[in-house]
Amino acid sequence: MHISKKSCIFADKITNHQSPITNHMTPISKLGEFGLIRHLTQDLTNRQPSTVYAVGDDAAVLNHQGKRTLVTTDLLLEGIHFNLEYVPLRHLGYKAVAVNVSDICAMNATPTQITIGLGISARFSVEDIEEFYAGVRVACEHYNIDLVGGDTCASMNGLSIAITCLGVADDNDIVYRKGAKVGDLICVSGNLGSAYLGLQLLERELQVFRATQHGNLSKAEENNDAIHEKFEGREYLLERQLKPEARIDIVEALRKAGIKPTAMMDVSDGLSSELFHICTQSGVGCDIYEDKLPIDYQAAALAEEMNLNIVTCALNGGEDYELLFTCDIHDYEKLVPIDDIYIIGHITPAEYAPVDVENGSSAAAKEAQQPVNLRLIPRNGNPIPLTAQGWNAFV
Amino acid sequence: MHISKKSCIFADKITNHQSPITNHMTPISKLGEFGLIRHLTQDLTNRQPSTVYAVGDDAAVLNHQGKRTLVTTDLLLEGIHFNLEYVPLRHLGYKAVAVNVSDICAMNATPTQITIGLGISARFSVEDIEEFYAGVRVACEHYNIDLVGGDTCASMNGLSIAITCLGVADDNDIVYRKGAKVGDLICVSGNLGSAYLGLQLLERELQVFRATQHGNLSKAEENNDAIHEKFEGREYLLERQLKPEARIDIVEALRKAGIKPTAMMDVSDGLSSELFHICTQSGVGCDIYEDKLPIDYQAAALAEEMNLNIVTCALNGGEDYELLFTCDIHDYEKLVPIDDIYIIGHITPAEYAPVDVENGSSAAAKEAQQPVNLRLIPRNGNPIPLTAQGWNAFV
Repeated sequence: MHISKKSCIFADKITNHQSPITNHMTPISKLGEFGLIRHLTQDLTNRQPSTVYAVGDDAAVLNHQGKRTLVTTDLLLEGIHFNLEYVPLRHLGYKAVAVNVSDICAMNATPTQITIGLGISARFSVEDIEEFYAGVRVACEHYNIDLVGGDTCASMNGLSIAITCLGVADDNDIVYRKGAKVGDLICVSGNLGSAYLGLQLLERELQVFRATQHGNLSKAEENNDAIHEKFEGREYLLERQLKPEARIDIVEALRKAGIKPTAMMDVSDGLSSELFHICTQSGVGCDIYEDKLPIDYQAAALAEEMNLNIVTCALNGGEDYELLFTCDIHDYEKLVPIDDIYIIGHITPAEYAPVDVENGSSAAAKEAQQPVNLRLIPRNGNPIPLTAQGWNAFV
Repeated sequence: MHISKKSCIFADKITNHQSPITNHMTPISKLGEFGLIRHLTQDLTNRQPSTVYAVGDDAAVLNHQGKRTLVTTDLLLEGIHFNLEYVPLRHLGYKAVAVNVSDICAMNATPTQITIGLGISARFSVEDIEEFYAGVRVACEHYNIDLVGGDTCASMNGLSIAITCLGVADDNDIVYRKGAKVGDLICVSGNLGSAYLGLQLLERELQVFRATQHGNLSKAEENNDAIHEKFEGREYLLERQLKPEARIDIVEALRKAGIKPTAMMDVSDGLSSELFHICTQSGVGCDIYEDKLPIDYQAAALAEEMNLNIVTCALNGGEDYELLFTCDIHDYEKLVPIDDIYIIGHITPAEYAPVDVENGSSAAAKEAQQPVNLRLIPRNGNPIPLTAQGWNAFV
């Protein structure tokens, strides 16, 4: 990511919004569906030996002989998951790949291939989609994966992105959410809350920008300088929001150190929400220590400025795409030398709320029941229960 | 499919449109994302031995040991690929699975697993999504495949469906588009144009319905009886449009007969368009005989009534999801006894238009260049060139 590009984000979008198809822009109808696909995929190179046949037929063909195949799908919809007023299409392409790769990493597996489904509304040009694909290519290169297929079609409204990522692993290397045991250490990579604060910053500046602009380009450019200043010293937060990374490096570091986590997830909805998944599926509780939560100083400073509680941001802000994992206490010595991993707590025996015998038939109720003792231990004071505020998309 | 349900299609939709969340409807926010997923997937049963771990973690785990894995993705967007004014959600769920299974069949492979990404706008209730999933389950049962994962989220507008289908095959069983040889027979299963005419019928009756209804329910019910009459004797066309089948039976029949096609595709965009893909990728031409095109009598009758050329419908109407394949002339004897397969022509040597030396550097131009001798041989008269009218989504 080129930091210098960031200050232009808004100016870019002004041009795009006022005239989606300028002199330099090619309407997609000129190429048609097949022409567009050929144009976008003509010089793809395959990196994975397991890629037998990629783009150009009804299905891709893969050779995952002797290994488990892993598969995950994510849908990214304009207006819900991203706002093109401040997300450059190239970054969006990168992020769309990264968040899927992250799911494969969270299984302790190696990502190998992706497919992309793209629904494109009339306001996008061939050049726009090229930008998106440029980001996809950079991500494929960075994560050493192959783009092997997909579907490109028109959409009524906005941009719809569906990405499926495949991966491989030996059966006994795979880490599920359900394996956490009492006494295990709870660890997280990188830091928490930065992506959320990056989003708050972008949203705030967008509101300011909207309020002051009058559709006047030179005015908007002046404005852009002001926004540039607002972003200075916050580049890291923007990067965390606009170009998150899947922590494939952490998976590799753990493997090299001889550590197999007992449970693992990526932090997409927020730490609390992910802890609930691990504890519910493993049938355990947990204690998390406030003073152990890794927080970046830019995030702390912006939270202060925006009157947000930084601990709440770290617990419930989503999209960090860091790895949350538990591992056996005996791995402690091997864990400590690994860079960028933080021990934030430990697994405790589960406690459940009493089952309502009238309404809940035992098996189903138990299955859906969450342990009640997921606790945050503050710096000074009594443990407080964690709540999975996460992201309810449907409210 | 219950034919008796069809006449209720419009009446159903009136109720849905006037009050998307009635007394009986549960808002999705009540369950939340994870609640909805649990609700929809709690009693899924796995049918495939290769399904190691399905829904409930970051990725599904599959064991395709010693086989090639195949993967295909399709995006289905409301307003582009389907109109919920006449497509019941249960049928849509079935069709969304079938069209992906069809892509795996078209590679001469066995479909094994699917993932579903669902973007749901606020006008849908839990019951609506249950209906969609009911169709998905029936399809999974029918095609003997497992639903192993997905993503469920909110959308700004309408329903977005992304389905990925995985399959397996031995390496030397896989059939690509690129293998057709001069002299090969060109075959198609079932019949052509019926799905397109089913769509024309639904669209016509929708227009009539819209024109005569005044938001009055009893009036609409009267109307519904009239529509019921219009659909009588056309049930097959509606079924072809609303509940297409992937021709997994044809793949099995060919295997049983010891026939491996030299090239194969499914007919989704239209016969002409698919022939262009096979001929371009195989570097061949073709002759197709008008009097050999398999056409259903309901399709022929409706085309007559609507003043449509039935041959044009058969050549360019999409969504039949029949299999188009080429096979060696020596397989003729084995081919004839198989039910529901029709020989419609044969492969000829390719002829190309002269390359413009000024503009086209040979390799790229040649690669993108299509043979010019794809021909339709009419009942009486001279061969006429086929044109890939197909479906350009971007016009």
